[in-house]
Amino acid sequence: MEIHRTPGSMQKQSQAWKKEGRSIGFVPTMGFLHEGHLSLMDIAARNADLVVVSIFVNPTQFGPTEDLASYPRNLERDLELCQSRGVAAVFTPEPQDMYGPEFQTYVTLEKLPNHLCGLSRPVHFRGVATVVSKLFNMVLPDVAVFGEKDFQQLAVIRQLTQDLNFPVRILGGPIVRESDGLAMSSRNTYLSSGERASALCLSRALEGASRRVKEGEIRADHIRREAEKEISSHPFTEIDYVTLCRPDTLEEVEVISGPTLMALAVKVGKTRLIDNAVLTP
Amino acid sequence: MEIHRTPGSMQKQSQAWKKEGRSIGFVPTMGFLHEGHLSLMDIAARNADLVVVSIFVNPTQFGPTEDLASYPRNLERDLELCQSRGVAAVFTPEPQDMYGPEFQTYVTLEKLPNHLCGLSRPVHFRGVATVVSKLFNMVLPDVAVFGEKDFQQLAVIRQLTQDLNFPVRILGGPIVRESDGLAMSSRNTYLSSGERASALCLSRALEGASRRVKEGEIRADHIRREAEKEISSHPFTEIDYVTLCRPDTLEEVEVISGPTLMALAVKVGKTRLIDNAVLTP
Repeated sequence: MEIHRTPGSMQKQSQAWKKEGRSIGFVPTMGFLHEGHLSLMDIAARNADLVVVSIFVNPTQFGPTEDLASYPRNLERDLELCQSRGVAAVFTPEPQDMYGPEFQTYVTLEKLPNHLCGLSRPVHFRGVATVVSKLFNMVLPDVAVFGEKDFQQLAVIRQLTQDLNFPVRILGGPIVRESDGLAMSSRNTYLSSGERASALCLSRALEGASRRVKEGEIRADHIRREAEKEISSHPFTEIDYVTLCRPDTLEEVEVISGPTLMALAVKVGKTRLIDNAVLTP
Repeated sequence: MEIHRTPGSMQKQSQAWKKEGRSIGFVPTMGFLHEGHLSLMDIAARNADLVVVSIFVNPTQFGPTEDLASYPRNLERDLELCQSRGVAAVFTPEPQDMYGPEFQTYVTLEKLPNHLCGLSRPVHFRGVATVVSKLFNMVLPDVAVFGEKDFQQLAVIRQLTQDLNFPVRILGGPIVRESDGLAMSSRNTYLSSGERASALCLSRALEGASRRVKEGEIRADHIRREAEKEISSHPFTEIDYVTLCRPDTLEEVEVISGPTLMALAVKVGKTRLIDNAVLTP
């Protein structure tokens, strides 16, 4: 397995692979890998000749009060996991090689970030869109795979790929959950044991909503209130949002008339967790 | 010579050329080609296996009061000129195929547009940066060539290419002038014969400044005032800016201590003309 530490070295290798006619499947990550990430690597492997994983905790997608400094890292373990999954190359650059002193170019979206996480994380999706554009130009993938847990991120990336005509096919990977239902996240490591128990409120609220919609409930308001009740019944929880919206534009809906995204963001102690499900009547 | 009218068709052809190991030199234009454009094609041809020219009057780089509707067009003549210059493919898309109804992604720079033309054309460089990023992803060039007449545009494109890591080498082509000194521009066609005579004020002002700096003048203020005097002595002229600045950051200078960009924008009648020169002590 190759390890590339600079944009130039990664780009050169990718260009060489393309010249050989080999297709590249790409999984961008911030490291501290879990089964969710590994499932994305498997999807990439099934859709391309070789897999590249990036590990980069991207500073421009964190707000000033967010957890950039404390974000969990374990490169040695990450590299072992990538190797065990047959990854061809890991790209793990330093921030100063990604953002030089004259850096000033950003990729911004005008609509999709004005919903869900974008409301409480104002610079987040600008940072994501910019770093993903940079990574696409370094790794030159034919296919890139992103987790559906970050549903809004996936929507942003699909849109920017289409709008800027990147020659990349975007695939989503289904949410991977712990046996009790908690969606896997590198940030779960922040949770105390009491918080870990309360964190189940997210998947429980989604399960309840899914059941109610199957039973014929169509009032988004009602489903949202029931979810809020479920979440608030657990200690340490503080709701950021509970939203029912269109999966394509992320615009809120009042009536559930087709597949509807239910997205949650909840602080459990100091840890902000997200989860989502598409509810189908 | 191939003619591609959709992004998908262009991108597919470029991907095929790349797979064959052929390098692509790219000249993006808004058409109504003149000797300046043709000189860029020659530079592209010397630096790549084949040349692609795009002809697209990009709506997003025009402000609401600017000349989008009246911008001169002559596709038939443009295609003949490209053919005569040995161009491999012309890419001439329709606006609706470049910007679909859900289009919402822009490439923005935080510093370089806050000078020169960016001050009176607030959306211009966002439009340029976005369309060039899109064109790079469609044409997949190894080399792209831009005229030095649009000096700030060239600076913006160099910076975004570096910041977003596009695998493209950017080259500038020297300004091409009419025999009397007027910098070639598709917009020169707007000038009446009286305005055409007055339009010489730009190159004259630059020549005067160049001579003064060679003679030892180092006060930017003094050089600017002399240039303004020259321009104002011609009828139909209205100065937008006369600026002496650093060629890299475009920040204004007070003292000329090294190569200094002198950039001019002047309205001659209703036609806004630009010109520039690097003054060297």
